[in-house]
Amino acid sequence: MAETHKSKALAVDLGGSHATCAVVAGASVIASETLHINGAMKLFDVLPRIANELRRLTHLTEVGFSECVGIAFGFPGIVNTQNGRVLSTNQKFVDATELDLPGWARESFNLKLRIENDARLALLGEQFAGAAKNFTDIVMITLGTGIGGAAMIEGRLVRGKHFQAGCLGGHLPVQLNGRKCNCGNIGCVEAEASTWALPQICREQKGFNESSLAQVSIIDFATLSEHAAEGDAVANAVWQHCLNVWAAGAVAMIHAYDPEVLVIGGGVMKNAARVLPFIQTHIKAHAWTMWGDVAVRAAHLGNHAALIGALPLLRENVAGEKV
Amino acid sequence: MAETHKSKALAVDLGGSHATCAVVAGASVIASETLHINGAMKLFDVLPRIANELRRLTHLTEVGFSECVGIAFGFPGIVNTQNGRVLSTNQKFVDATELDLPGWARESFNLKLRIENDARLALLGEQFAGAAKNFTDIVMITLGTGIGGAAMIEGRLVRGKHFQAGCLGGHLPVQLNGRKCNCGNIGCVEAEASTWALPQICREQKGFNESSLAQVSIIDFATLSEHAAEGDAVANAVWQHCLNVWAAGAVAMIHAYDPEVLVIGGGVMKNAARVLPFIQTHIKAHAWTMWGDVAVRAAHLGNHAALIGALPLLRENVAGEKV
Repeated sequence: MAETHKSKALAVDLGGSHATCAVVAGASVIASETLHINGAMKLFDVLPRIANELRRLTHLTEVGFSECVGIAFGFPGIVNTQNGRVLSTNQKFVDATELDLPGWARESFNLKLRIENDARLALLGEQFAGAAKNFTDIVMITLGTGIGGAAMIEGRLVRGKHFQAGCLGGHLPVQLNGRKCNCGNIGCVEAEASTWALPQICREQKGFNESSLAQVSIIDFATLSEHAAEGDAVANAVWQHCLNVWAAGAVAMIHAYDPEVLVIGGGVMKNAARVLPFIQTHIKAHAWTMWGDVAVRAAHLGNHAALIGALPLLRENVAGEKV
Repeated sequence: MAETHKSKALAVDLGGSHATCAVVAGASVIASETLHINGAMKLFDVLPRIANELRRLTHLTEVGFSECVGIAFGFPGIVNTQNGRVLSTNQKFVDATELDLPGWARESFNLKLRIENDARLALLGEQFAGAAKNFTDIVMITLGTGIGGAAMIEGRLVRGKHFQAGCLGGHLPVQLNGRKCNCGNIGCVEAEASTWALPQICREQKGFNESSLAQVSIIDFATLSEHAAEGDAVANAVWQHCLNVWAAGAVAMIHAYDPEVLVIGGGVMKNAARVLPFIQTHIKAHAWTMWGDVAVRAAHLGNHAALIGALPLLRENVAGEKV
């Protein structure tokens, strides 16, 4: 059986505080387990736990390694998909750039390994079996701790010369003289409206000391939304600011990549009823799409999107692959 | 001789107020003539003048039509390069969407015709023989009456599903609650810092009535720069605003397309000594390019860039071409 026709795969979705391990069959996650880990740890020290978990899950589901196309890794940073190396880690798993993950997968499981940026892998998943099914030109944005982005044009992931294209959607500047971002830029979508930036944004809002938010120990979007709904003026102003930022970022992504569909995911979308209609209306009014309207949809697959992206990633004909 | 190995071509660069006709050989424009026309005219009525001019230039240079790969048209709007149709004209040559330009070229010259957005064609020219030579991952920005953009990834022009990708670089939003753009969006680079927007931007600047600019009948960037150099506070403030806008737009293009080189052209670059170093410094400080520094260069080919893009456009293997 040709490798690319196998319909099972192993998948690992690595985040700042978790590694979700899974066995996937087609578009289904048939078994998964989330390991809680500390992103400050060395990835080298986490790999044995991941290997054990993958062995346990395959045993449980009676899937043989040889039935799998390979292992797909989703990584929260910039990666070289051609040679399986991590290029930049953004302060998580700082040893990852030194690791030979394809070598580890060969030795541990006799399987090929592909690695992809987590947002790109989630886009692949949403295209394979979620909100972007049957589309070839797709932009995905994830609104959460950071702001993720990914783009596909004519059925091919936009990766770019240094594997940065598309996935810096959260770092498009939308505000002149705006807030300084962790990335070094000014007024990025992420600096203006992400969970990490939110407490500072609130504290800088005029009237904060009189706001009900001043009593909250950790301000996140769930809290913000509650206080806004209760009529707190500061919470409402910040919430509106964030909606404006996300909407401007969405238009920027549409103007940059010319998609048919925009998929919005991430933790903020737990409150999709307050987020999605605003962005949809803004795009309809302000995006320059002479051909018609971009479909704007909530992500369908939630935390499973990157896992379900495993099979399409492993089946892709990656130009210039050197593994 | 295979078509793609011929080294001569006819080229037409169509603008709002001109149609430059040329015969090119390799990377040289061996003869050209600029017809002054009114963009409010029907393109149908201009085509006979273009045909006559191309006949005159080929006669003059003793180039036979059969020696040419074809005719390349640069158009200031959105075009479908696969079938040679104009999709959107942005108020210039409004009948262009109805014309069968490939048919016209076949009947008039027995040559194939390809059409491309003018900024994309200029990028091809700069890559073939200008500031982007030997690069495969390129972003081009033109600063002038409008703000043009184009992008190339891995040696292929970024066109997108509806042929809008890359060429809306001037319509990336960089200012929340910014100025309304002609395109319908808010705070676009073009609305915040282009020649068409400049008079309004100046008039809205605090202190305008006391500024030396208040005496000027038509404010363009040359005037603005002069008055700024003479110490006019309003001119300096607007000039600085425009520099900030262009720099933010440049970072947005870099984050979106991950290029090795950024080429900046357009009329504003007559004042390159005041523009280029600012943008270079801003990018070095603020663009997130973990792999190294993006080269930032002035366009080399000036008004000839799109003409020199004719041969590479005609030689390209355009996926899905239906002419």
